[in-house]
Amino acid sequence: MDTRNPRIGIIGSGAIGGFYGLMLARAGFDVHFLLRSEYRIVHEHGMAVDSAVHGQLHMKVQAYASAADMPPCDWLLVGAKATSNRELAPLILQAAAPGARVVLLQNGLGVEEQLRPSLRADMHLLGGLCFICVNRQAPGVVCHQALGTVNLGYHSGPAEDRGAAIVAQGVALFWAAGIDSQAMDDLAQARWQKLVWNMPYNGLSVLLQASTTALMTDPDSRDLVRALMAEVVQGAQACGHVLPNGYAEQLFRLTEKMPDYWPSMYHDHAQRRPLELQAIYAEPLARAQAAGCHLPQLQMLYQTLAFIDRRNRSG
Amino acid sequence: MDTRNPRIGIIGSGAIGGFYGLMLARAGFDVHFLLRSEYRIVHEHGMAVDSAVHGQLHMKVQAYASAADMPPCDWLLVGAKATSNRELAPLILQAAAPGARVVLLQNGLGVEEQLRPSLRADMHLLGGLCFICVNRQAPGVVCHQALGTVNLGYHSGPAEDRGAAIVAQGVALFWAAGIDSQAMDDLAQARWQKLVWNMPYNGLSVLLQASTTALMTDPDSRDLVRALMAEVVQGAQACGHVLPNGYAEQLFRLTEKMPDYWPSMYHDHAQRRPLELQAIYAEPLARAQAAGCHLPQLQMLYQTLAFIDRRNRSG
Repeated sequence: MDTRNPRIGIIGSGAIGGFYGLMLARAGFDVHFLLRSEYRIVHEHGMAVDSAVHGQLHMKVQAYASAADMPPCDWLLVGAKATSNRELAPLILQAAAPGARVVLLQNGLGVEEQLRPSLRADMHLLGGLCFICVNRQAPGVVCHQALGTVNLGYHSGPAEDRGAAIVAQGVALFWAAGIDSQAMDDLAQARWQKLVWNMPYNGLSVLLQASTTALMTDPDSRDLVRALMAEVVQGAQACGHVLPNGYAEQLFRLTEKMPDYWPSMYHDHAQRRPLELQAIYAEPLARAQAAGCHLPQLQMLYQTLAFIDRRNRSG
Repeated sequence: MDTRNPRIGIIGSGAIGGFYGLMLARAGFDVHFLLRSEYRIVHEHGMAVDSAVHGQLHMKVQAYASAADMPPCDWLLVGAKATSNRELAPLILQAAAPGARVVLLQNGLGVEEQLRPSLRADMHLLGGLCFICVNRQAPGVVCHQALGTVNLGYHSGPAEDRGAAIVAQGVALFWAAGIDSQAMDDLAQARWQKLVWNMPYNGLSVLLQASTTALMTDPDSRDLVRALMAEVVQGAQACGHVLPNGYAEQLFRLTEKMPDYWPSMYHDHAQRRPLELQAIYAEPLARAQAAGCHLPQLQMLYQTLAFIDRRNRSG
């Protein structure tokens, strides 16, 4: 592989994959997009990002309807929902060059563990945590409202130095595309930290049909967000991860300053896609429980979401 | 007062007041209905109960648009929402004969305490707990699906024997109308027991937009109902009320056998009326908290309902 010009594949070209893929393509990288239902439109009209930060981007892209048609990629950025990882594994294998780095740009716990057994021993698996407000607006069109950082951590693979060099390459890739990125020493801890935001806001956006502004304005939902955040911190601690002091309060304050935002789970529900309940709720709750830690309000949030998700997809 | 033929006033002639008032009128009692928006229709067309138990009832009734026009009543059955007790007090005083018995047919805690200071010293105040599936179908028309028991307990007033004789008169009144009724020694405990049903089902029907059958079918909502019931029992115990062994499980099983039912709070929400959150959630939670007992899932249910109620009435 040519480390100065690696070939990048985007698996799942929705809001996350579309945004980062197009930013990398704009920076001159050789990017290949795997698409499903949106293939024809993107193949003909290209992809667009309407960004409050970077302005309007619109480019022709290298689009594929089948992973078998893709050239072997050195980096594979997986932006698809965690609910589809089992079906994605064969596609990732088809598109992967020898020694490929696979980055799961997904929330929640257990996503790498689920995918790892399907990968080859020569492949590196990384986790990527995206701090970004982004939504798919139309086929091939992504709306980027705010933020953008991708933090990377090594999960598993043939790297000798706990993956530090591989992670550094990934960080450099994003920097070259104008995207902030940091290396994370402890991926598991970073995933728990991200949950301090995702568990309250994703779930409440579905349960209360409310965006962040509504949740941060009402006194009862404000208190509830804080209480749910405190439970995530408690769960992380039970699992051996001591989060930075005041971390939850910092996320709370950041969310107050964000533009009004509908979390991805809200859109999944509105479009009758399965909710990412396993990675974002069931797995963290099970790990906390196994460590002797009961988290009653997160448990209740999970149960109400499971009810809503089941009805939403059967109705 | 003629104890063989007391005069009965119904304050708030919705589903509860309408059903019990019409049953008493059918039994030959002298019943007077205070109405608001439905006065004209009921005055002209009478009231109707469409009952799965008692069949079709339809009667002309003595209807009033103003409490000042009502004759002095020996019994006043208050079927209005607990949210309106403050405005009801002057009406109750206007319609009350000397030594009147006022029965609050309402759920939750603190409703008698809220009304008592507005009543005269000669007036008896009782609480009535209705175990009934009933809904207002149209102006002056009540749909009765199942059950019907009214249990009565003495709250306060000039009675010397802790109100036992007064309660016995009330019980006899309902029996004479073909309605099951039991005297309750301990009104506060009985109100907590009723909450074991009301707190889970009323709240979840609004939060999940789900009827009892849906809640009792889905595995996650079933578990959640059980957990919420357990918290109510815990709160009752913290406040000194030891509920009968297996009481919650008994209510759970009863609800499985009930016809599909949309609790009253669901209808309040659907019709943009204020939810009875103070009596059914805030007051029990505050009393448990004062006794050192934190009930996290009921607290979360209350907060989500407060959010929903506020938005529902401002939107």
